[in-house]
Amino acid sequence: MKEKQIICGFSKLDKDQKLDYISGYFENQEDFIKELKSFYHEDEKKQKIFDEFSENTISNFYFPYGIAPNFLIDGNIQHVPLVIEESSVVAAASKSAKFWSNKGGFHTEIISTKKIGQVHFIWHGNFDKLKTLLPDLKDRMIERTSEITANMVARGGGIADIELVDMTHEIPDYYQVKATFETVDSMGANFINSCLEEFAQELKEFFTESPYFKDEERNCEVIMSILSNYTPECLVKVSVECDIDDLDEIDEDLSGDEFAWKFEKAVQIAKVDTYRATTHNKGIFNGIDAVALATGNDFRAIEACGHTYAARDGKYQSLTDVEVKDGKFKYWLTIPLAMGTVGGLTTLHPLAKTSLELLGNPGATELMRIAASVGLANNFGAIKSLVTKGIQKGHMKMHLLNILNQLNATTEEKNKTKIYFEDKKVSYSAVENYLIKLRTPIEASKVVYVNK
Amino acid sequence: MKEKQIICGFSKLDKDQKLDYISGYFENQEDFIKELKSFYHEDEKKQKIFDEFSENTISNFYFPYGIAPNFLIDGNIQHVPLVIEESSVVAAASKSAKFWSNKGGFHTEIISTKKIGQVHFIWHGNFDKLKTLLPDLKDRMIERTSEITANMVARGGGIADIELVDMTHEIPDYYQVKATFETVDSMGANFINSCLEEFAQELKEFFTESPYFKDEERNCEVIMSILSNYTPECLVKVSVECDIDDLDEIDEDLSGDEFAWKFEKAVQIAKVDTYRATTHNKGIFNGIDAVALATGNDFRAIEACGHTYAARDGKYQSLTDVEVKDGKFKYWLTIPLAMGTVGGLTTLHPLAKTSLELLGNPGATELMRIAASVGLANNFGAIKSLVTKGIQKGHMKMHLLNILNQLNATTEEKNKTKIYFEDKKVSYSAVENYLIKLRTPIEASKVVYVNK
Repeated sequence: MKEKQIICGFSKLDKDQKLDYISGYFENQEDFIKELKSFYHEDEKKQKIFDEFSENTISNFYFPYGIAPNFLIDGNIQHVPLVIEESSVVAAASKSAKFWSNKGGFHTEIISTKKIGQVHFIWHGNFDKLKTLLPDLKDRMIERTSEITANMVARGGGIADIELVDMTHEIPDYYQVKATFETVDSMGANFINSCLEEFAQELKEFFTESPYFKDEERNCEVIMSILSNYTPECLVKVSVECDIDDLDEIDEDLSGDEFAWKFEKAVQIAKVDTYRATTHNKGIFNGIDAVALATGNDFRAIEACGHTYAARDGKYQSLTDVEVKDGKFKYWLTIPLAMGTVGGLTTLHPLAKTSLELLGNPGATELMRIAASVGLANNFGAIKSLVTKGIQKGHMKMHLLNILNQLNATTEEKNKTKIYFEDKKVSYSAVENYLIKLRTPIEASKVVYVNK
Repeated sequence: MKEKQIICGFSKLDKDQKLDYISGYFENQEDFIKELKSFYHEDEKKQKIFDEFSENTISNFYFPYGIAPNFLIDGNIQHVPLVIEESSVVAAASKSAKFWSNKGGFHTEIISTKKIGQVHFIWHGNFDKLKTLLPDLKDRMIERTSEITANMVARGGGIADIELVDMTHEIPDYYQVKATFETVDSMGANFINSCLEEFAQELKEFFTESPYFKDEERNCEVIMSILSNYTPECLVKVSVECDIDDLDEIDEDLSGDEFAWKFEKAVQIAKVDTYRATTHNKGIFNGIDAVALATGNDFRAIEACGHTYAARDGKYQSLTDVEVKDGKFKYWLTIPLAMGTVGGLTTLHPLAKTSLELLGNPGATELMRIAASVGLANNFGAIKSLVTKGIQKGHMKMHLLNILNQLNATTEEKNKTKIYFEDKKVSYSAVENYLIKLRTPIEASKVVYVNK
């Protein structure tokens, strides 16, 4: 095995050369290469697409592609493709979807789809004057980007607004051009950033050319021009509602009233306690990210935005709300979700494309509705487990298979172990001990025999 | 094509039956099944492992598995495996890593690795009395979980502390058992949750059995027992440092001083402006999540925790800090990262296992150091692009390949287009137009010929 050293020109090697180079860090180089190649797609042309998604690619990383069926969303049934490595996510989403499917399902509302971009600049001058010149500046910016925006405008989107923001109370001489965009069915990152970089150029030229500025006002230092992943206005609300009596069926030990009381307390706790809020919201993103991954959307953008939104009132708290009143149980999620169904990987990744097809080729707002519903379903499922039998019973049962695979259990051993643990607590060591017993009856009897 | 309807017992179908069922929603059922099966691993046993990671699995979703070489971290060189669909992440990480590799590299510090779990309960009684009884309760809880903790204690971890928290100022009668855990090299979710569910049982028994409680104090309603994904103490700090003169090489149009000034402003802006902070931090998670995915770690947990931490002072802000002073440029990231290198998928997923091997089979703290370094590298790369040539130039160049694939360009067309766009602005329509021209010379000449 090689000692690791700084490599020059790694990105210029072809894929086989890269694989060969990295194999040098493994004891058995051939095994490493064979293993990584075993994950290639059989169709070379398709494999090339995966290779070109990113840089320095040497293989594909597999994630399970599963289906959470039975989501009734605004009256339409969806069987939702999910990509996620956590064993309980698909199961929880499916169970919740089924539970709500005969209680009216998920109701959604798109509050807005506006996205934000900023040109951050340092400038020393009369801001009031600049503000009066904004209409002119705006025209120039819109004119300058007309070629970039043409396609988007044709699809019904474009630049919605351009404002100037005075930030000098935070940093001396710091201002922003803050622009609002509609990007229709695309996530729009490239579109927004391309517009913003042109805005920045135009801003600099405006300061140089406009007759209204004094010489000392002509210098403008653009720090950066970039979209914001925080889109608090690109917002979707999803709710479920049922009679409290309908909650009787959830747990044999709890009445609907008792369940509703505990559930309400659990959500209240996630409103007041940050430690709990983080995990509560994480359960929402389990579902949303799984939809994002399955449809080629950028889950880091979605996560960053949603969590920032959760902290918008100065304290990080739950993204869901509950109301238990007049015999009704109502639960809802309000979350900003900037998603796309055209552009990026959405149609380039063969399975992302398949995902969208299975969902009936939705537009961006439809996908927002679906993802938010899955998020609420996952969170509902988690809280339901937590306030009834606890999360570990289900979790560990699902994890049992992983433990068994880790211990290289045969199908026969798996079946025996599953039956044995049906009424017992699953833990790694308990499963290991049981498997050892299962595997050693012959040796054990031998020992007895020898000692006789 | 079938109309979508509620399915009963979907999870009980075998994989082929599921695939068959879902294929009914596609125009060409056979094509759909063939396509999804084309992503299966050739080794059935291995494919079964992927199938069993989750529920209702019908295929594998491929993500590109790439290498960001040349990370010098605390004096050791690492070539870091990254799983990510965003084309610029691996390139940015690699470039930053190389840049810092001859300037001392990344310096890391683990501040703590403590993790948190809570039993949330509603109880009406004398809290001061309960607090005086805590030592007894603690002993009982530790005793009750001794079987669960045995393995963890042997590995150097276990229960670090158990406290009682009065939350009645927020919700009447609401208290917490708040426990601190050390989980060594595992992320420890199952371990912590198993302990907490036992704590909850013990708590209830304690109220029933202890002679010190009045009858009306014996009723305790446990709402839920669950780990917190917010682990502000499980913290790593990573920094880079160089002479400002060394920054001269970054951009031909900026001196080191000018670059440092702009960079500093960009970070200050991410401290004061939430819209910018979200995107600034998103760039950190681009790198961290790519390491998390490549090593089988739960990126939702990491995201939820990091963003909550970014909002800890009442306003969501940048996770990085910069200092430009006395001729030195220093940049650092402080971030909570609860990661594991044993348990979960870390060793069960063949490529996650390979990733860890390539990293020299690190412990959890080593992986924290590596992930944090990649996060800082990605953020540094993003800010560097933003304050110099802008992000779009690099982005669109990398995106060019995706556009070309979308337009089914041949290798020859790709090469021609890449050369053509070397000094031009990339946009979908510009590339499309160029390709149309490239593809139609024969027809064009034909038309000319006919018209002659």
